[in-house]
Amino acid sequence: MSSGIILWFTGLSGAGKSTLSQELVRYFEDNNDRVELLDGDEVRTNLSKGLGFSKEDRDTNIRRIGYVARLLARNGVVTITAAISPYRDIREEIKAQALREGTHFVEIYANASLNALIERDVKGLYRKALSGDISHFTGVSDPYEHPLNPDVEVKTDSESVQESVRRILNYLHNRGYLESTT
Amino acid sequence: MSSGIILWFTGLSGAGKSTLSQELVRYFEDNNDRVELLDGDEVRTNLSKGLGFSKEDRDTNIRRIGYVARLLARNGVVTITAAISPYRDIREEIKAQALREGTHFVEIYANASLNALIERDVKGLYRKALSGDISHFTGVSDPYEHPLNPDVEVKTDSESVQESVRRILNYLHNRGYLESTT
Repeated sequence: MSSGIILWFTGLSGAGKSTLSQELVRYFEDNNDRVELLDGDEVRTNLSKGLGFSKEDRDTNIRRIGYVARLLARNGVVTITAAISPYRDIREEIKAQALREGTHFVEIYANASLNALIERDVKGLYRKALSGDISHFTGVSDPYEHPLNPDVEVKTDSESVQESVRRILNYLHNRGYLESTT
Repeated sequence: MSSGIILWFTGLSGAGKSTLSQELVRYFEDNNDRVELLDGDEVRTNLSKGLGFSKEDRDTNIRRIGYVARLLARNGVVTITAAISPYRDIREEIKAQALREGTHFVEIYANASLNALIERDVKGLYRKALSGDISHFTGVSDPYEHPLNPDVEVKTDSESVQESVRRILNYLHNRGYLESTT
């Protein structure tokens, strides 16, 4: 695997960001690449305790993830982030910073329709969001700005995890971001 | 250079943490090692904006530096931190976490007497702290808990930068943390 790459997921809660990230981690580990996953919840605990869910606080949280991701990626670590990152301008800002430093930045849109997510509702969060028990819930009571031009889009409400993973790896391979052709 | 090492400076403002860190960065760069310096001010900007200087906020800041340092070090990056990190318990906590993960952790005490620092006062900060223009200033109006048993102690008020650097590198060499004998 080439050095210096960030795989940046964005998408609603439950859209498959963590699942796909973990599959990718496994792929890169099998390939003996250095890989780190910065998951939304873990990062909130370690870097952003005390921050809330206003746009300003969400932006701060995402910028911190971006800072750490860039540090790791520029040292040759395949860095995968799996936070919702709902705001377009901050994603663009981090992408621009990464590219300026010579790090590849791949925005991956985990796209599932809100209806599908509400129906599935694995963690029961959408029910709580719709009833008002959780506030500031992205897609329900807080904005989500989908990418206008993502590098990869995976339709996680209609394709399998393996199909999505393959689509992502194909993209990386076609762009020459994977050294081997595994 | 072996993978997985954190060089953790602690010491008062002006005691030479940044200067020594930068010298070490140069050494490792010349050696073609991957190296990152997490400097106190830079990290405050990127990870801890909004935090103050209470023990609780300082601890949070230092824990964040520790988190990022561990992420980098476990990916083979020589990671140097140069924040004051005034509290013993948090330094010990991070050291324990690092060791548990198989990362070497070297606590380096940049020791200069308060009198020497007040006399030198390169940035004029001690004057302001003593007159009360700056509050919560470590060593003057805020606690500093020096290490009881640092891995390396450099006496920056009586030895030259090059002597201190040599002392640190000798320690690393003797412990087998440097692969080559450069």
